[in-house]
Amino acid sequence: MMRPYTFINAAMSADGKISTYKRKQVRISGANDFERVDHLRAGADAVMVGIGTVLADDPSLTVKSGDLRRNRKERNGCENPARIVVDSMARTPLDADIFKKGEGERIIAVSETAPADRVEKLREKARIITAGRDRVDLVALMSGLKEFGIDTLMVEGGATLNWSLISQGLVDEVFTYIGALFLGGKDAPTLLDGEGFADNTDAVGLELVSMEQMDNGVLIRWRIAKP
Amino acid sequence: MMRPYTFINAAMSADGKISTYKRKQVRISGANDFERVDHLRAGADAVMVGIGTVLADDPSLTVKSGDLRRNRKERNGCENPARIVVDSMARTPLDADIFKKGEGERIIAVSETAPADRVEKLREKARIITAGRDRVDLVALMSGLKEFGIDTLMVEGGATLNWSLISQGLVDEVFTYIGALFLGGKDAPTLLDGEGFADNTDAVGLELVSMEQMDNGVLIRWRIAKP
Repeated sequence: MMRPYTFINAAMSADGKISTYKRKQVRISGANDFERVDHLRAGADAVMVGIGTVLADDPSLTVKSGDLRRNRKERNGCENPARIVVDSMARTPLDADIFKKGEGERIIAVSETAPADRVEKLREKARIITAGRDRVDLVALMSGLKEFGIDTLMVEGGATLNWSLISQGLVDEVFTYIGALFLGGKDAPTLLDGEGFADNTDAVGLELVSMEQMDNGVLIRWRIAKP
Repeated sequence: MMRPYTFINAAMSADGKISTYKRKQVRISGANDFERVDHLRAGADAVMVGIGTVLADDPSLTVKSGDLRRNRKERNGCENPARIVVDSMARTPLDADIFKKGEGERIIAVSETAPADRVEKLREKARIITAGRDRVDLVALMSGLKEFGIDTLMVEGGATLNWSLISQGLVDEVFTYIGALFLGGKDAPTLLDGEGFADNTDAVGLELVSMEQMDNGVLIRWRIAKP
């Protein structure tokens, strides 16, 4: 199957949590990591998040640096990468920051069972891709994105989308920034939630590409090992 | 309060899980890390685990290397560190490997509500420390251990004990080996489970002591920051 080159970027606490059990967004990384993420975003054709992340954090997903935006505009004709929400039931709020801030294409991926009225309202603000019956079919979506000319895709969470993509073999690399704090909590979202693998033999193997200290934490780059 | 110098050692997947959601023990680290852990254990006055770890994994917690055992015997008079189980309801099986394997002291920490008959049976195999009404009072336990002459304590899990100790400020350092695999699962045990911190301001701050590549993964040593 053809799909974009796909990488996840995420910041987690030293015990693997991406937010507190109350789903409160927490500053995990520092200024240097913020800049690194902005560069990654500016270099991607599209960024993708799950609907849970939109509802919890309402991110704009725009490129923050003015220089990077100008460079991107010269190079790609647009300041920001396309912004994609995986949103099976079309729950993205019409006043989400993803719509309000910055120029560039918005794509909402919905399932066939998403309420038609909500889909029509979102269609005024975004390109709609319908894939899958009750839940977005990620394999079909990724194939469609590639056909639209999206060659590099950055995934910015959250825990459920990360799991769905990883468990379906749709990811090439993962950048994890490990912050210098513990959050704890058996119900706190982790880098990968979902059902999980039952044992060792199912687990996804990784190759360590690089590691470095950044701000007060550690940045690790993993490549998904080919099975 | 006087307590032993206490460090947690744990291996987790790159998404922060210490086992699968089925509580299946998974080989996360490699031969070099195994040796490192054996050295840490041989150097500690005592090792501690929670009852959940005993019931799930039945570890012996002995020093594995013959050389290290001999050195320890010459130095400390005993091949193995004291083995401590935090076991509020005295559920440690009488045929647990912790009793069957290796020489050295065993300590079972129970609460006042632990069934008396079980406590008496365990007393034939271990020193019993009673601390706390329904659950083991870890502050009192740590103080008692220090009085017994335990100056350095290695904690080997699991997720609940780690959280209880960290959230009560009873830990000085944490070694985390991050293995080259993803396990996923919102119900899989993580490095720190328990209730968790509600937000950023409660979170436990860390200082990065060192990081290095080991086997196919990354070993990070954190020091708990003093509040």
